[in-house]
Amino acid sequence: MQSKPIGVFDSGLGGLTVVKELIKDLPNEDILFLGDTARVPYGTRSKEVVQKFSLEDANFLLSKNVKCIVIACNTSSALAGGLLKSKMEIPVFDVIAPATREAKRVSKTGNIGVIGTRGTIDSGAYKVLYSKNCPLFVPFIEEGEINSPALKILVKSYLSTLKGKIDTLIMGCTHYPIIENLIRNEVTKDVILVNPGKCVSKDVKNYLIKNNMLNGQNKNGDIKYFVTDLTERFVKVAEIFLEEKIKGKIYMVSINS
Amino acid sequence: MQSKPIGVFDSGLGGLTVVKELIKDLPNEDILFLGDTARVPYGTRSKEVVQKFSLEDANFLLSKNVKCIVIACNTSSALAGGLLKSKMEIPVFDVIAPATREAKRVSKTGNIGVIGTRGTIDSGAYKVLYSKNCPLFVPFIEEGEINSPALKILVKSYLSTLKGKIDTLIMGCTHYPIIENLIRNEVTKDVILVNPGKCVSKDVKNYLIKNNMLNGQNKNGDIKYFVTDLTERFVKVAEIFLEEKIKGKIYMVSINS
Repeated sequence: MQSKPIGVFDSGLGGLTVVKELIKDLPNEDILFLGDTARVPYGTRSKEVVQKFSLEDANFLLSKNVKCIVIACNTSSALAGGLLKSKMEIPVFDVIAPATREAKRVSKTGNIGVIGTRGTIDSGAYKVLYSKNCPLFVPFIEEGEINSPALKILVKSYLSTLKGKIDTLIMGCTHYPIIENLIRNEVTKDVILVNPGKCVSKDVKNYLIKNNMLNGQNKNGDIKYFVTDLTERFVKVAEIFLEEKIKGKIYMVSINS
Repeated sequence: MQSKPIGVFDSGLGGLTVVKELIKDLPNEDILFLGDTARVPYGTRSKEVVQKFSLEDANFLLSKNVKCIVIACNTSSALAGGLLKSKMEIPVFDVIAPATREAKRVSKTGNIGVIGTRGTIDSGAYKVLYSKNCPLFVPFIEEGEINSPALKILVKSYLSTLKGKIDTLIMGCTHYPIIENLIRNEVTKDVILVNPGKCVSKDVKNYLIKNNMLNGQNKNGDIKYFVTDLTERFVKVAEIFLEEKIKGKIYMVSINS
């Protein structure tokens, strides 16, 4: 059991920001990442479709014999987290519970905000005072267009309704840490930004320690990347998310029968 | 045969701009439209995935007993048009051939440009002098964010490389006619904009007349809309594309087994 890999999935490549945290916190763990790049984004789709896709993602990881599953996607956590926890016989971690707990821990006033996809925000899964959906962030980030003047205007426009009201902001989409500096520019300096990927990574580590499930190997874990579509731009964009060169192998797979 | 419907498919809702032209040119025809809204956009995906999805789309229409298929998507026309024509036993129309022919007819200098998704542009299917991919137009348009200041900046930026070089511009994505006014503002006044949806609609009409395949009914045709995902925003966005109220029925379907 201990030597099995950790399974991580996302709609696309945003989940690699969570993989990055897991590598830092649990350097000896093997990790299997699945990005459903043939069907990204999930954030604009219905609950029914997000549940269907998420179940296929989780079943793929299960078929690869992982010891637990991390839903590295806020939309999927919000719309399919409960379903996956009830269906899977291994531990399933979503990003919403640990991020909400961390935000409540660090906020002094309780004036917490969250930004996310339409799917995440409309679900009401983040039970905080202020929320704003930002449906066009993901396409820019998946394109690697993170310095685009058009994106800067969007960030300003989306965040204007939260400005001055909050002391803590949850970046409620695994893509958003990539544009943390743009988000930072649009909120006051003392606002604490919460990265759900960091929070869930700490939870996974604590859980594995507590349940004697840590991989005991004395070398760096092996990372494998599975994607449902592989374009020429994959490596370029993936390395923006990981903030380092991809070391593991990349496989293209079909996950729906 | 004559009384069978015309089948039309697109990755998402952009193809409704083609449906609009077909309704104008062929008011007595029944039309079945399929929008693969669960997997939109196609323009950022690989040839392999676009071919797989397009084949599933065409097979769905075939199962509904259509008399011909219109690929109302430039990416799918570019990457899967040949495949579908070879696999289907009914006529298949793509948008690229008629648009190229029309551009060559109207251009005085031969300085023709095309804008489209990355998939369309990188395929080289449009054999014209100038081309520019505009990967972020589709997300804005599918969001209905067609008056966004950020979109205006994107249009300016994408079109700057074509400005002054062309006398004819093919709007090589069925979504783009929705933002024709923004595109018009960024090219000189005398540049002719070619809408592939209008061109393919004329071709379909001529073909049906020539082959005695016109529907002889004396009433307006029946339009049915099939989508692979149905969100609350569907009707709002669809009506932007159709430029009128949706009259036909809307069905949510699953097209991959």
